[in-house]
Formats: sequence, C-alpha cells, structure tokens
Amino acid sequence: MEFRQSIPLDWSFRLINHGPTVLISAEFDGVRNIMAGSWCMPIDYLPPRVAIALDKRSWTRGMIEKSGEFAISVPTCSQLGLLHAIGTTSGKEIYEQTKQDKLTQLGIKTISNAVVKAPLIAGCAAWLECRLISEPLIQEKYDLFIGEVVEASADRRVFHGGSWDFSTYPDLRTLHYESGGTYMVTGDAIKVR
Amino acid sequence: MEFRQSIPLDWSFRLINHGPTVLISAEFDGVRNIMAGSWCMPIDYLPPRVAIALDKRSWTRGMIEKSGEFAISVPTCSQLGLLHAIGTTSGKEIYEQTKQDKLTQLGIKTISNAVVKAPLIAGCAAWLECRLISEPLIQEKYDLFIGEVVEASADRRVFHGGSWDFSTYPDLRTLHYESGGTYMVTGDAIKVR
Repeated sequence: MEFRQSIPLDWSFRLINHGPTVLISAEFDGVRNIMAGSWCMPIDYLPPRVAIALDKRSWTRGMIEKSGEFAISVPTCSQLGLLHAIGTTSGKEIYEQTKQDKLTQLGIKTISNAVVKAPLIAGCAAWLECRLISEPLIQEKYDLFIGEVVEASADRRVFHGGSWDFSTYPDLRTLHYESGGTYMVTGDAIKVR
Repeated sequence: MEFRQSIPLDWSFRLINHGPTVLISAEFDGVRNIMAGSWCMPIDYLPPRVAIALDKRSWTRGMIEKSGEFAISVPTCSQLGLLHAIGTTSGKEIYEQTKQDKLTQLGIKTISNAVVKAPLIAGCAAWLECRLISEPLIQEKYDLFIGEVVEASADRRVFHGGSWDFSTYPDLRTLHYESGGTYMVTGDAIKVR
C-alpha cells in the first residue's frame, strides 16, 4: 500500500494509545479469521506490549493460541460498514457453511505482512504485528492475552512525525466503540504546553 | 454533585469502552493520590471487570496494592489543564516536601464515594469504584492490575439511557491521550443500523 510506512517500535504504542476500536486477526493452518474489538491497550513502551481481552467463544482466540501470533489493524471512518460487518458475523459459521473464511466472504483486502502470518487489513490507518506471550493461566481466568509488538506501520497521510493528524483526511479518522452499534469518531487534537 | 447518577453495573463498561484517558486514584492509611492513565479497559461485562497498567514507580500503585481498592474518574475537555497537571506531578514528591497530598496541593475537589475510599474527582463525566482482584504474579510481571467494578456513576447531562451524548455539552466531552501532551477529544457519534 503506497501510503504505508513502518513506525519505530518505541512509537508503536501511539497507534492505539487513544483507545480506538481495532480489528484483531489471526491465521492457523491456512485458515484466517478476523474480529472487531475495543478491549485492546498498550501495557509497556519498549519492548512494546499490548493486552487484549478475547471472549472464550471467539474463533480468532483459538487461532491466536495455536499460532502464537495475531495482528491489530486500526480501522477508519470510511470502513465503518466493514467494521460493523466484521463485528456481527461469525467466521466459524461462515467457514462451516462455505469452506471460505470471513475475509474472503466479506471481500476484505489484505496487505503484505512483515513478520507474522495474521492478515493485515487494507485501508486501515495503522497496523501492529504481534507475537503472543503465552500465559495460559491469565488467558483462561481473565480472557486476557498479552502480545509483544514486533512490527508497526501506519498510513503516513494521517500519522507522521510520531503523531496522528487527521485534519487533512477526516475520512481516515479512527473510531471508538461505545455499544449497541454506536461509535464515536476520533475528534480534534488539543496540545497542552 | 447534582448531575451525578448511578449507572447499572451491566452498563458500566460503556463508561470507558470508547477508550478515554482516565484518572486513577487510591487512598491508604489516610493519604490519597491520583494519576493520569490511558492504559485502562474493560475486560468483562458482568461482573464488570477492568484492567489497568501501572508503572512500578507509581505511588498510586502501592496504595492500590495495600488498600485493595481504586477509583477511575473520566475527565472532560474543561478539565484538560487539571488532567495534565495531575499527569506531570509526583504525589510522592509533593507529600515528602509538604506533607499534603497531590489533591490538596492542586486544589482538586472530590465527591462522595458510594463504596471504596479512593477519591472520586468532581467535575468528571463518569466514575467507577473498583475492588482490586489481587493477582501478584500478573501485577509484578506485566504491571497489570485487575479490578471489579462495584459502583458506577455518570453525569446524566452527557450519559443517559445507557449512551454517551455530548452534543449539548461539548465542554464535557471526554479525552483520548496520544503522547507528548497531545490529546484528542471524543468526536461525534455515528450509529450503525
């Protein structure tokens, strides 16, 4: 993707520090899946680590456990319909009925990975490739999964110099999920001096 | 506070699901402290649980470990200066020098608690009172603290019927921290049907 630019790992937390809704994807044994999630946050700067909470019914969760990898893509306003479709369909059901994965069924385009096999979604504002830090007790008891970010990239039209700037491309603003189909867009930036 | 309204616990995740920057506070042995944090998210609906990441140098962290309680207050645009002052001062240093806590020194007003002793900050948009679910191994290894939300409340001018609505009170919009003194305000809501 022509606007994609690699981000230094020590800046990678900035891609999700503002709490956007994300897409979480994984691949295992040649089958991919993707889910929408709001429960994702940085937990360390360097090495950069993230925590995500994944319901036990999630098909993506099993793929993450088996492959030891996942990817986070940060969707934009212009992908709202796609985001909601991803969040309201079951990849497992689609696969059982059609033998095609959710990405193929929904016509989701991906971009090339740098490190992990989990799919990165085209048209997003940022991407984090993560290796699972396996902690079965935390995963089982609290549905919490910890990952180390091993590669980060962003659309340089909206993330440059280590900062988000959506002023020129409002359609690329990120989203924040409330509940029941309601999202808030990322608003204007304020700089405190 | 006249606009404060208790929120059913099964709706409490909605108060932070959009990823706002929060204030995290605690009290132990008659001394209070407060910090700014962006690494806070829901991890379960009912009983509602949250995860927060707290640096080992944080004075608030020790108070949370000793008291087994903490509070989350969700600050607004009009509290930006206060939020940044909280995030850039050390309560421990203030206390060692003045024998007053950071809240007193910064003139921070609190509102009455329902359950925990950790201070709730006046003028915020929402409040979560939490009991620590002690997990020393996770706390030590990943700086992750898990809490059960035991009481939730919000300013009914901006949170009603289970949803945020900042349209009438833009000064009460919540904030999302990026880095380096830059915050994004919570933008307009979009409803997907």
